[in-house]
Amino acid sequence: MSTDEEIISKLHKLSITSTEVVRHEPVKGGVEWKVELEKVGKGGVGLTKTLLFKPKTAKSATPTPVLLIARESTQTSSSLLATQLNLKDLRLASLDLIKEVIPAAQTPEDVSPLLLTSPIPETLHVVLDAGLAESEEIFAIHGTTSGSSVFLKGTEIKIWLESLGGEVKVVDFGEAVTAPKKEEEKKEKTIPPNVPVKKEEGLYEMAIQYKKEENFSGWYTDVLIKGEMLDYYNISGCYILRPWSYSIWQEIQNWFDAEIKKLGVEDCYFPMFVSKTTLEKEKDHIEGFAPEVAWVTKAGESDLEEHIAIRPTSETVMYPYYAKWIHSHRDLPLKLNQWNSVVRWEFKNPQPFLRTREFLWQEGHTAFLTKPEAEEEVRDILDLYRRVYTDLLSIPVIPGKKSDKEKFAGGDYTTTVEGFIPTTGRGIQGGTSHHLGQNFSKMFGITVESPDKTITEPVHVYQNSWGLSTRTLGVMVMIHGDDQGLVLPPRVALQQVVIVPVGLSKAEGKNEGIFDKCRQLETTLKKSGIRAKADVREGYTPGWKFNDWEMRGVPVRLELGPRDIASNTVLAVRRYDGHKESLPLNDIEITIKDYLDKIQLAMLERAQVKFDAHVRTCTKWEEFVPLLDQKCALVVPWCEVEKCEDEIKERSKSQANKGVAEDAKAPSAGAKSLCIPFDQKRFGEFPHGHEQKCIQCGEKAKSWTMFGRSE
Amino acid sequence: MSTDEEIISKLHKLSITSTEVVRHEPVKGGVEWKVELEKVGKGGVGLTKTLLFKPKTAKSATPTPVLLIARESTQTSSSLLATQLNLKDLRLASLDLIKEVIPAAQTPEDVSPLLLTSPIPETLHVVLDAGLAESEEIFAIHGTTSGSSVFLKGTEIKIWLESLGGEVKVVDFGEAVTAPKKEEEKKEKTIPPNVPVKKEEGLYEMAIQYKKEENFSGWYTDVLIKGEMLDYYNISGCYILRPWSYSIWQEIQNWFDAEIKKLGVEDCYFPMFVSKTTLEKEKDHIEGFAPEVAWVTKAGESDLEEHIAIRPTSETVMYPYYAKWIHSHRDLPLKLNQWNSVVRWEFKNPQPFLRTREFLWQEGHTAFLTKPEAEEEVRDILDLYRRVYTDLLSIPVIPGKKSDKEKFAGGDYTTTVEGFIPTTGRGIQGGTSHHLGQNFSKMFGITVESPDKTITEPVHVYQNSWGLSTRTLGVMVMIHGDDQGLVLPPRVALQQVVIVPVGLSKAEGKNEGIFDKCRQLETTLKKSGIRAKADVREGYTPGWKFNDWEMRGVPVRLELGPRDIASNTVLAVRRYDGHKESLPLNDIEITIKDYLDKIQLAMLERAQVKFDAHVRTCTKWEEFVPLLDQKCALVVPWCEVEKCEDEIKERSKSQANKGVAEDAKAPSAGAKSLCIPFDQKRFGEFPHGHEQKCIQCGEKAKSWTMFGRSE
Repeated sequence: MSTDEEIISKLHKLSITSTEVVRHEPVKGGVEWKVELEKVGKGGVGLTKTLLFKPKTAKSATPTPVLLIARESTQTSSSLLATQLNLKDLRLASLDLIKEVIPAAQTPEDVSPLLLTSPIPETLHVVLDAGLAESEEIFAIHGTTSGSSVFLKGTEIKIWLESLGGEVKVVDFGEAVTAPKKEEEKKEKTIPPNVPVKKEEGLYEMAIQYKKEENFSGWYTDVLIKGEMLDYYNISGCYILRPWSYSIWQEIQNWFDAEIKKLGVEDCYFPMFVSKTTLEKEKDHIEGFAPEVAWVTKAGESDLEEHIAIRPTSETVMYPYYAKWIHSHRDLPLKLNQWNSVVRWEFKNPQPFLRTREFLWQEGHTAFLTKPEAEEEVRDILDLYRRVYTDLLSIPVIPGKKSDKEKFAGGDYTTTVEGFIPTTGRGIQGGTSHHLGQNFSKMFGITVESPDKTITEPVHVYQNSWGLSTRTLGVMVMIHGDDQGLVLPPRVALQQVVIVPVGLSKAEGKNEGIFDKCRQLETTLKKSGIRAKADVREGYTPGWKFNDWEMRGVPVRLELGPRDIASNTVLAVRRYDGHKESLPLNDIEITIKDYLDKIQLAMLERAQVKFDAHVRTCTKWEEFVPLLDQKCALVVPWCEVEKCEDEIKERSKSQANKGVAEDAKAPSAGAKSLCIPFDQKRFGEFPHGHEQKCIQCGEKAKSWTMFGRSE
Repeated sequence: MSTDEEIISKLHKLSITSTEVVRHEPVKGGVEWKVELEKVGKGGVGLTKTLLFKPKTAKSATPTPVLLIARESTQTSSSLLATQLNLKDLRLASLDLIKEVIPAAQTPEDVSPLLLTSPIPETLHVVLDAGLAESEEIFAIHGTTSGSSVFLKGTEIKIWLESLGGEVKVVDFGEAVTAPKKEEEKKEKTIPPNVPVKKEEGLYEMAIQYKKEENFSGWYTDVLIKGEMLDYYNISGCYILRPWSYSIWQEIQNWFDAEIKKLGVEDCYFPMFVSKTTLEKEKDHIEGFAPEVAWVTKAGESDLEEHIAIRPTSETVMYPYYAKWIHSHRDLPLKLNQWNSVVRWEFKNPQPFLRTREFLWQEGHTAFLTKPEAEEEVRDILDLYRRVYTDLLSIPVIPGKKSDKEKFAGGDYTTTVEGFIPTTGRGIQGGTSHHLGQNFSKMFGITVESPDKTITEPVHVYQNSWGLSTRTLGVMVMIHGDDQGLVLPPRVALQQVVIVPVGLSKAEGKNEGIFDKCRQLETTLKKSGIRAKADVREGYTPGWKFNDWEMRGVPVRLELGPRDIASNTVLAVRRYDGHKESLPLNDIEITIKDYLDKIQLAMLERAQVKFDAHVRTCTKWEEFVPLLDQKCALVVPWCEVEKCEDEIKERSKSQANKGVAEDAKAPSAGAKSLCIPFDQKRFGEFPHGHEQKCIQCGEKAKSWTMFGRSE
């Protein structure tokens, strides 16, 4: 039997690095334990439980026990577990069975996944709580000897178990979480699967627990929750958009809605439900969505005659009515948009804003008499999407065309604005504008008589559809956020300026003067349309307030104290770069307006520099994977043949494997084609001009194309 | 066997009045038929089919045939029919069986529901297409002799069949309607169950087919569809909000959202899904909604572990997180609102805007430390709801309190703005603002420590919830619409002014001058924020345009022709009263702005007059029902005891029966309590002051209370 140390060294071979052993008395909580905690960072450590179950089996049959490793806080319903493994009523195993499965264990308390030996016997089901498997948090696991613990990230526990061979089943108990009963329970229960267990109030509230560069996904979750952008919900893959994020979405809505109305688009609302038959009308299209469709089959107590889908997107919802409404070319163009939510029941790891089962978006659906008109709109809309990123969110993107492999199911071609997250080295699709050609109009019979009398056939209309979702908010956080928390671009921030009174005196009531001055300043700024707020909350120190607003990303903090008042100035602190300067209070509203505009631009410029450093042209395959592993997206000469696209993905995948084991989300992700940039010149002439070869097959290259890993 | 005439007279006894007999050759379509149509109005007549099916039964067993009466245009899937009746594979009956069931029939063509004799044999299933059963349209039914037809409203066919005794099953084939394949099919298929079959393009487009006073529900549907407010959808109870109506909703949203933000409310978005356990947390509450909840049980191919509900309202969705977010009294008040859609799967007759399975609304959910703060907000919000009706939609409402019987399930009390539709004599709940007290906070454990240190117990917060829905749009149409179509209040109209070129010359290109002038006028008006549009569409006559914009309710039409241009004037026509006057073109934008404001007010005043004429005080029971039958709501002295409320409903129901048979929607609806108006003085002192007796029980009356039939 191996010792903790031996296991640790094995783990290191698996490039698991965060582990360490801590000897201590069995967990009781309290001080003694907290001291140990220092070793694993202030965030606290999650507790785990390891349970062995015995399913009901015929006496004769060999028992097939179940070893479950779960968070302490997870409600591990044995019935749910049984159905998932499709076994009959699970009972906790007897000590005999325990000894049989884990010889090293003397008592039930000794049961530890670390005592498992390789290979895991076929008869043993090893089950891991999704709350662990998907978590970057650190957990205490019972070690190889009583009184010892090993600290591992949730994801590392999974890697360890898999290293023993045999299948490890991940079960999500998340959906079983019920609404809290008592104050006490609540705090536990409503904690989402992958949020750190809150050990001590204050601590948790006051700081972001991870470094963006070290543990990106932990950092992302933590920033979103502590920044009050969203909260987890007790249905996995669904999230609550709190005012702090929803207000940003509203800013995007207001701007974009005004712009499309200038283009003659009108807003409307179609039902969220689609009948099965209608949904399945366009084959390629439904193929793309079928696996993720949520079905309503019951209303009240009665079963529905025909199952009804919740729209994953609205092409098939709307187009039968386009066919009904469009009689003559005079009814064209028809340009409708709706702001709604759609449901795509993905089973992949959900991620706030980026991969959620319900999300908010706008979807535009337009019909034209001629292809050129339609294609012009595709580009007009795409440019609005670009401006949402560059002008509103200070984020650089590359407009381009998707390869045929990556285009929208059922459309002619797809245009996209591609973003890029330097920290993860992943490309991200920012918004897409599709030209559907006549594919749907033929399917749904959307025709008009040609105004050209010589043409007697009915003409099928040309259609576009285009959508932008709340994913924008996730990209914004990933691009601008830092180790202190959110960093919001002024244009979309619900609070652009926060005014904090400082230099306060301990004596009661001595500070009213300062508070009033802060309130006056708030009024002055508000009058000229600046979203300002004076934080005159009692019972919080200035320091606490600074940290609070920094975590929430307010672009400018104004500190106002007796000295400032005396000198008729205020101290301005910029969130995005921490720069401090004293500003005169005279005409402060003009100064601040300009100040905010400059920040908006500076944030874009800073992001652009990082972007350009990570989006690299590359013409030699030898350089491709190494650059990929340096978290770059690569703009390469490509022949635009799908086979090459697949090859590139395959080759970069396999070769990458060693390099990126720490990449939790897709350990061996290959590079996909992200887009063929419209602005080819941006990347200069091909080194050998027309002679340039495709980086993969060596045939003649057609275009610079952006390849990379992607979200 | 009875003749058509005999049947007609029977029908008259059932107070079915719209019927008449028309002899003609079997329908071929074409002129000859159209002449007949004149008899039943320009809208055209719907065609029907009557089919006899034989289910698969054991040789020995007595056959249980199925007689189906359906619209010609309905896809009558026999499999759907079979499952509904839970019979095995239905085949069309042989002539023998036909003769057995309907002796009078000599050929399959002769089969007619009018040949059925009373009582209908137990072995015969009589099935009526919902498209007929729920329709106020007129349909041709095969008469008692070949070559004769009888014209009946869909609803009257139902009444006739029921008069024969035996059960009549209504089956909705609507959901089976599939998206159209060919141009031809389309026109048929996408016709919603209860919209008149379109006989000739022009005809259908050009006029509202019903008189508001004569056939209200037919009129309402027709106005909504021809006014392009909405369209029917192939899932019953769901409707499409077209830009013409959605833009009005956006106007309401923008105004209301700005107002609540002044009150410190913030917008957010919670998921549309609720887990079963959470939904059922508050017993009274769920009892109120359970029968109408839509359940998601499948995603893609896999069945869900726990069934997931689509929110019927969000109390139980949000409050577990209120419990999580509210730690200290410093976190109060918490004021959140969301703009979303909710689903209530009602099985009652759906009605556009008023009773739909999915509808758009806002729901506010707020939490306070003290009851007085909460109660103040309840009234503040209610007053905003009042202003949505009076200021934006020019509709009078009465603010008041619901009786305990009518309050929100799970709340302390409900306040409401009650509207009233004079044409139907029905009250309608315009919007409700609920005080929930501590009921939900106790259920979900939403507590804070009292700022008052002497109080050691945790304090449960006081909560409100309040909602306003797209039902507002339905009320607006019902109140202001007339026999020409919609009449929109200027403040919410997507187009406030339409400019129509008139006095055009036949000669090509001679009219450009007029068209340009119209475009200039559009620009001038738009510059000063008036939503104006010049209708310079080619190929339509001015008359056609007049009618088109009248039907769509545009508040002001400006006619501009050579003569007007010469005299530098324009002819203005007001939609709401048809008034015409010539206005100088100088400073036209100022004139029109003021003109629109006056219309907005005048529409409210006109509605108020009608409202007051129909909302009558009444202190004697003898006058109660007669006034009710004169389509009034009654403000009566009431003791506020629930038993009396029930009694009043019962007595007014039974007594009313004769009077209101023509009221299709609820032939014998009794009077419910609508609200206890806050402004009691409005109705003057009780005639006998404190001695005034309750109109029902004769005990001491507590308040003037508004009773009436309701939507």
